[in-house]
Amino acid sequence: MIAVDAMGGDFAPHVIVQGALRAAQSGVSVLLFGDQTQIKASLDTLSTQWRTLPIAIEPCTQAIAMHEEATRSVVRKKDASLVRAAHAVREGRASSLVSAGNSGAVLVASTLIIGRVKGVLRPALGKFLPTREGEIFCLDLGANTDCKADFLEQFAYMGSLYVKLFKKSLNPRVGLLSNGHEPYKGSMEVKEAYRRLEKKSDINFIGNVEARDAFSNHADILVADGFVGNVFLKGMQGTIQLLFNWVKTETNRSWFSSLCGFFTWPLFKKIKQVTDYQRVGGALLLGVNKPVVVAHGSAQADAIYHAILFAQETVESKLIEHFNAQLADVLGDRRNSVFNEQKSA
Amino acid sequence: MIAVDAMGGDFAPHVIVQGALRAAQSGVSVLLFGDQTQIKASLDTLSTQWRTLPIAIEPCTQAIAMHEEATRSVVRKKDASLVRAAHAVREGRASSLVSAGNSGAVLVASTLIIGRVKGVLRPALGKFLPTREGEIFCLDLGANTDCKADFLEQFAYMGSLYVKLFKKSLNPRVGLLSNGHEPYKGSMEVKEAYRRLEKKSDINFIGNVEARDAFSNHADILVADGFVGNVFLKGMQGTIQLLFNWVKTETNRSWFSSLCGFFTWPLFKKIKQVTDYQRVGGALLLGVNKPVVVAHGSAQADAIYHAILFAQETVESKLIEHFNAQLADVLGDRRNSVFNEQKSA
Repeated sequence: MIAVDAMGGDFAPHVIVQGALRAAQSGVSVLLFGDQTQIKASLDTLSTQWRTLPIAIEPCTQAIAMHEEATRSVVRKKDASLVRAAHAVREGRASSLVSAGNSGAVLVASTLIIGRVKGVLRPALGKFLPTREGEIFCLDLGANTDCKADFLEQFAYMGSLYVKLFKKSLNPRVGLLSNGHEPYKGSMEVKEAYRRLEKKSDINFIGNVEARDAFSNHADILVADGFVGNVFLKGMQGTIQLLFNWVKTETNRSWFSSLCGFFTWPLFKKIKQVTDYQRVGGALLLGVNKPVVVAHGSAQADAIYHAILFAQETVESKLIEHFNAQLADVLGDRRNSVFNEQKSA
Repeated sequence: MIAVDAMGGDFAPHVIVQGALRAAQSGVSVLLFGDQTQIKASLDTLSTQWRTLPIAIEPCTQAIAMHEEATRSVVRKKDASLVRAAHAVREGRASSLVSAGNSGAVLVASTLIIGRVKGVLRPALGKFLPTREGEIFCLDLGANTDCKADFLEQFAYMGSLYVKLFKKSLNPRVGLLSNGHEPYKGSMEVKEAYRRLEKKSDINFIGNVEARDAFSNHADILVADGFVGNVFLKGMQGTIQLLFNWVKTETNRSWFSSLCGFFTWPLFKKIKQVTDYQRVGGALLLGVNKPVVVAHGSAQADAIYHAILFAQETVESKLIEHFNAQLADVLGDRRNSVFNEQKSA
């Protein structure tokens, strides 16, 4: 059973309900949290058969808007769809949370209600991005700004462990996103994280990675402060959008350009599928006790559908269970060793 | 006369000399700093006529490598090509400095030797990036990491003034690069810069701009910390490279794909020209007393040629002279007003 925050996102609740309906049609049980009248109205317009599908509704009287201050709204709005959905996951009535709402509020609700894994300082948003010949797992993509070296160090462990489990990769390469590949490049915290990570024998740290080389298959994991990671991710999305727009404009210039455009389309369609963030499910919030999938605020029904499927697959594979158990072990050791280093220094 | 650091860059001195030769052939006087034997050998292999062109050489016995620590190398290596070139600009024997070398060292040499404009806390690297229907001037693209709100506030003034003068634009729109458009989004320093900029009446501050929207013509100037701006710029370059690679791979899959690829090429050639950082001259270091153009470390001859032409155009237009005079006025006022605000607070 996947708990879905039906009121979160720019186009909520209708597109959220639409995505959830598709997921239910493909066999995933969904529990929708939100305004019952609106949800039922959406379901009725979308399908006459929805009552035969594995869809349940838990009515909520409140919702957290995209612009609301995260902590305050989570603490005060006890009956908000997001808060209620997080409680359902905590209580075990649902096995995973999916939200396209205010991502700060999702982070706070997940941390306060579902709870952090023991030893985790800050949960991080992680996601695979496409590269030239594969994928790179990037974190943090926006859950935390002003990250300390401690946090970056933990993100490196989280990313490494997730890729080990998800890709069954033995020794994935971890890079730090920086403004140059040299060890002395970076913000103060990135430089400090570099110094710490290069001493670790239990992580395959390959050093700094420039944003330009992130797609060149040098690294399997890219570690960044959430502010920087978010700029990196959205810069990539913006650039792809920019190129598509240019191609479109160029193809309208002359009959020859139109002909070129006609033949360009099949190539671009394929690329669009790989890069379209509407299709790619969502990011996983690593470091909390249960699988939490954060979909994009402007997600359409298709993105919600994929996010719910992704949550269901994550639950079925028990990936987060294994991940959390191993992470608690690693961070337990790590904190001790950091503590010992500080004592001996 | 443009002072060129012939020993700076991944492919120095040969490609630097090659670019400088082309600039001299198109009428720009160049003064090359570096290993005389190597420079002459390069010139001899490239042209039998170079002695008839406006090219002079100032022999230097040292060079600053790409990986060297910036401040220490600039202070210690008195006879380094970069240091000597900066002195030539300071002394007025050259009117502008062009280097593809260690960008940290270029920043330090420019600040220490050529000198900062009065009131400037940190010089910033700025450059126009292409957008959907125009350009956006982005700064800082990598000169300063760990920028305080003070610096970001000054970058906003520098960017606004530069665009006013360069584009003859009356009221250019200034945005802050952030992880969300809401005022409460951003790192601590970005949030503080937001609070300060929204109170200014002499700047057209439009608020936060997400990386995804940077190319959508919402803003004319994009202000960022140098670390973040560098990730943004290089992420854009990496994404474009990634898309070109995918198109290339796709076009090799079948005869139909090859046909598509054949028709795609004219479109892509045009886009490649706009976005190719090898062709786009270089970034301007704003806030120092003379025009300093920083070319990319991996710049080829073509990029060096364009960087030298850009430096020459900047000198001829007296843009930096006007810019610096007005900047000193604005920052003088600004510092006073900040001071007054603090006093009255």
